[in-house]
Amino acid sequence: MCRCEALPRPFWATQRIAPTELFPPEVTTVSNQIPLKIIPLGGLGEIGMNIIAMEYGDDIIVIDAGLMFPESYMLGVDIVIPDITYLKKNSEKIRGIILTHGHEDHIGALPFILREINPPIYGTRLTLGFVREKLTEHKLLHQVSLNTLKPRDKVVLGSFEVEFIRVSHSIVDGVGLAISTPAGVVIHTGDFKLDQTPVDGQVTDLNKFAEYGERGVLALMADSTNVEREGYTISEREVGVTIDEIFRERSRGRIFVALFSSNIHRVQQVIGAAMKYGRKIVFNGRSMLANVRIARELGYLSILDESIVDIKDMHKYLLDEITIITTGSQGEPMSALMLMSMDEHKYLKIEKSDTIILSSKFIPGNEKTISNLINHLCRRGADVIHEKVSEIHVSGHASQEELKIMYNIVQPKFFIPVHGEYRHLATHARLVRKLGLPEERTILMEDGDVLELTGDSAVITGKVEAGRIFVDGKGVGDVGEMVLRDRKHLSEDGMVIVVLVINKQTGEVVMGPDITTRGFVFVKENSELIDESKRIVLETIGTGNIEAKTDWSEMEIEIRKALRRHYNKKMERKPVIFPIIMEM
Amino acid sequence: MCRCEALPRPFWATQRIAPTELFPPEVTTVSNQIPLKIIPLGGLGEIGMNIIAMEYGDDIIVIDAGLMFPESYMLGVDIVIPDITYLKKNSEKIRGIILTHGHEDHIGALPFILREINPPIYGTRLTLGFVREKLTEHKLLHQVSLNTLKPRDKVVLGSFEVEFIRVSHSIVDGVGLAISTPAGVVIHTGDFKLDQTPVDGQVTDLNKFAEYGERGVLALMADSTNVEREGYTISEREVGVTIDEIFRERSRGRIFVALFSSNIHRVQQVIGAAMKYGRKIVFNGRSMLANVRIARELGYLSILDESIVDIKDMHKYLLDEITIITTGSQGEPMSALMLMSMDEHKYLKIEKSDTIILSSKFIPGNEKTISNLINHLCRRGADVIHEKVSEIHVSGHASQEELKIMYNIVQPKFFIPVHGEYRHLATHARLVRKLGLPEERTILMEDGDVLELTGDSAVITGKVEAGRIFVDGKGVGDVGEMVLRDRKHLSEDGMVIVVLVINKQTGEVVMGPDITTRGFVFVKENSELIDESKRIVLETIGTGNIEAKTDWSEMEIEIRKALRRHYNKKMERKPVIFPIIMEM
Repeated sequence: MCRCEALPRPFWATQRIAPTELFPPEVTTVSNQIPLKIIPLGGLGEIGMNIIAMEYGDDIIVIDAGLMFPESYMLGVDIVIPDITYLKKNSEKIRGIILTHGHEDHIGALPFILREINPPIYGTRLTLGFVREKLTEHKLLHQVSLNTLKPRDKVVLGSFEVEFIRVSHSIVDGVGLAISTPAGVVIHTGDFKLDQTPVDGQVTDLNKFAEYGERGVLALMADSTNVEREGYTISEREVGVTIDEIFRERSRGRIFVALFSSNIHRVQQVIGAAMKYGRKIVFNGRSMLANVRIARELGYLSILDESIVDIKDMHKYLLDEITIITTGSQGEPMSALMLMSMDEHKYLKIEKSDTIILSSKFIPGNEKTISNLINHLCRRGADVIHEKVSEIHVSGHASQEELKIMYNIVQPKFFIPVHGEYRHLATHARLVRKLGLPEERTILMEDGDVLELTGDSAVITGKVEAGRIFVDGKGVGDVGEMVLRDRKHLSEDGMVIVVLVINKQTGEVVMGPDITTRGFVFVKENSELIDESKRIVLETIGTGNIEAKTDWSEMEIEIRKALRRHYNKKMERKPVIFPIIMEM
Repeated sequence: MCRCEALPRPFWATQRIAPTELFPPEVTTVSNQIPLKIIPLGGLGEIGMNIIAMEYGDDIIVIDAGLMFPESYMLGVDIVIPDITYLKKNSEKIRGIILTHGHEDHIGALPFILREINPPIYGTRLTLGFVREKLTEHKLLHQVSLNTLKPRDKVVLGSFEVEFIRVSHSIVDGVGLAISTPAGVVIHTGDFKLDQTPVDGQVTDLNKFAEYGERGVLALMADSTNVEREGYTISEREVGVTIDEIFRERSRGRIFVALFSSNIHRVQQVIGAAMKYGRKIVFNGRSMLANVRIARELGYLSILDESIVDIKDMHKYLLDEITIITTGSQGEPMSALMLMSMDEHKYLKIEKSDTIILSSKFIPGNEKTISNLINHLCRRGADVIHEKVSEIHVSGHASQEELKIMYNIVQPKFFIPVHGEYRHLATHARLVRKLGLPEERTILMEDGDVLELTGDSAVITGKVEAGRIFVDGKGVGDVGEMVLRDRKHLSEDGMVIVVLVINKQTGEVVMGPDITTRGFVFVKENSELIDESKRIVLETIGTGNIEAKTDWSEMEIEIRKALRRHYNKKMERKPVIFPIIMEM
């Protein structure tokens, strides 16, 4: 399976270090010569867009290549990807991209990154299954080398030896990483939780983490997403129990279950409940169909062909014989669920006997659209079950007690919280300090920081170019903060265009002013305002000083000022004003 | 205190009905003649903007007059108020506006409504204290009649007799209402919870609700805000315990507590902790200063003058001698807290020893700005405590078990869930049906619906004009859905203006095309795109058919189409395009 295993191992990787010899002097000596650099390019300062570079001498490995979904202020932006200028500049050093799991915030930037750099990619089977689908879509598959590893497989990439360690998460086939380097071992947890009863029985491989812990770990990078939650994260299997209950109680009507299509375990649990209570299954949504296909092909999802009904054949079954597993749990405007809720779907119509389960998180920022979806579904009389009223969703990330366990098992010399906004990283650092790690060994980094590690020191020595690149339609990076500022301004009070033609010689207004507005006021009821605006423009030109009269760009500024003053005083609004003067 | 008590009582209000005679035939007979109408004009279909009209014959009373804060799609809108066309049309019938408590979603629309209608206003002391402040600000106080009632006071307003019933909530001096009418008694809970240990010891007056319950209640309107929460809402006093703990543990550095200024009980609890641990208090924020002043004047807040330090004198004290009680808990951009977090405040600077407590809800829609605030504060090294990591906030609204108690005590014939989006109303109706009320007696209404109640029937008989009016700057109602659609469109991909002057006779382009964009692309790096756009405009004019050449508005449409096609194909973007052709 893993052709990487055949590669030669570096001298130091074979050497066994006894537990009693943690950080022995010889390792320190070696590592003092060249520091190990850890350079996060995304995910330390935001939730999403995870990507971290590790550099030793002439070798770089990259961990994950994720995207981020835009925040509300990023108007019109479709997705956000990390700035990989540093990787482009050092592309000849890059030995590989290692993917911890198949979520978009870990693999979603690959199609963009692989247009710039093209190192081999390493991941587990399902992760690469999802990547293959994505790269096929972007017509990039032919150029890329995809290398499958299993948990406990190792691969040598230049000075790095990377071992995959099984972790449980809300997607199948996730791993953490043990990265052995001449400076010491760095553990990266990936996204993880300590689910003791995961659906596939594959618990987080604490034994392997423990083995490294005993041998001595230089630094631990650990998932901070849920660090604000006390206690333990509930097992995915508990959701299965809730789903089973709902299916048992509802013998009439259809049951819709909306969830993230990558959550294969949850899909499996819904399939199980449907089978048990004699229902056929309709899969709906493009990504649901794709991910179910991939997971079935690779053996991660078990369902008989005869249990699946095409959406077009649904009418052949009674309502209580049907379960629909669908996307659209975030209230996406064009999703089947949203269309149905507004009674605008081609085939499907919500019935009063329908039960709709939204088995996913209300992602912050989507609260309002999800709420709209629920309101509409309730209006059609459906019974809607969601995470606010039922234990129908659990997180895939470790809570505080699990994070403590991971830390105590790995016993790192230095601790680097990753995957989170600054507040999460800071809270994680605080948590670990309470477990006894001195403050100077908890490293709070942000995107672009360069951390240099030797066997016994960790210093942030500089910063590389890093940040967020906005993707808007086909444009990558042509929308920046300035364009967003303009969009925001336009969105708040709309705009006013003033066009007029002026006789160059006499300074007389030959045509216009014509006034066009959009998003400012409801024009039909405000013709008075338009007339006032015209008067103010003409007055401004009439009283303009001589300089302005010979420099029309100066006059445009005057007109803008006069109108701005007027609108602000009269209406307390600040539309964007475009005076356009053309000279004859 | 209550000069209303002196008014004559209507004939039926004096009549006592024995508990055994619930809904006796004579009441039914009377009420059959004229139905009681309940007409919600806001708050049934949204959280906020609460206002309900009740009408009997020639008498109308109005319950609350709240505003709503804009949802994210309401770009540029400052606040949202209810459409009160129905009240304007029937202004001569209105006998009074009754306020249940002083929150903005119950009193915030008053300044707008009182410009249209001017009935007397009834409320408790603190509620009217807040109203007085608001009306003074809007220069409306002189025209308004404010009438103070205490809990268990009654007032007769035409055919209605209204009794105030103490309820506990996150603001002091809230009440529910018992509204006796010839058709029967209607109970309105106001916003309430069953806090058994409220800070002022004033528990919800279940005895009074019970008295009405025994006598027979026609309809119950009950707060649905927290209907999705199981169990009981935690007591406000528990927050006091948490606050005390935080103060005890932090003997070094300042403590900031950010909360809603109307939450007088919480302010009192923070004052208590500050006193206990020997700290002075600085109040900060305009609304905090105003509400603390009002609450002190009216005796709802107890603090010694010598405990208060002006923000300008703060430097005279050691850090650990100071507590700052401030607004800004929602990450408002210009709040002191936000400015400090970004190191941009005039006097105040965050120190590493500071503790900042955000003692309020993360209101959906504000999550991102609050998160930004926390991130910045963490970056300055402060210890930030908020509702996600500590029991530092409790809700003021009843959870499911409390709602069940209220229903079972009042035993209404009909149940009308109020205060919520449709999902909350539907869930509340479902909850009450589980307690045994038949489906046809749970009335799901939305804003504008007209419910006609007699002693034994409840029918929605029609709809009146109702809805949301957007306030943007000084404009009330001049921004509608169409303007918002335009703002949204502008916000997504920006705009492109094309101006050119054409010779009317020859159809030749005399000047231009000039292209201006905003929020579209970063122009400096896209001069090529501008050149292309110009070329496309000229080509379109060149190939335009004869009709178009004589009808320039037709040509404008052609240009818009051509550019739209081009941008969509090349960039997958859809800016708003304004072709402006001027003819010479």
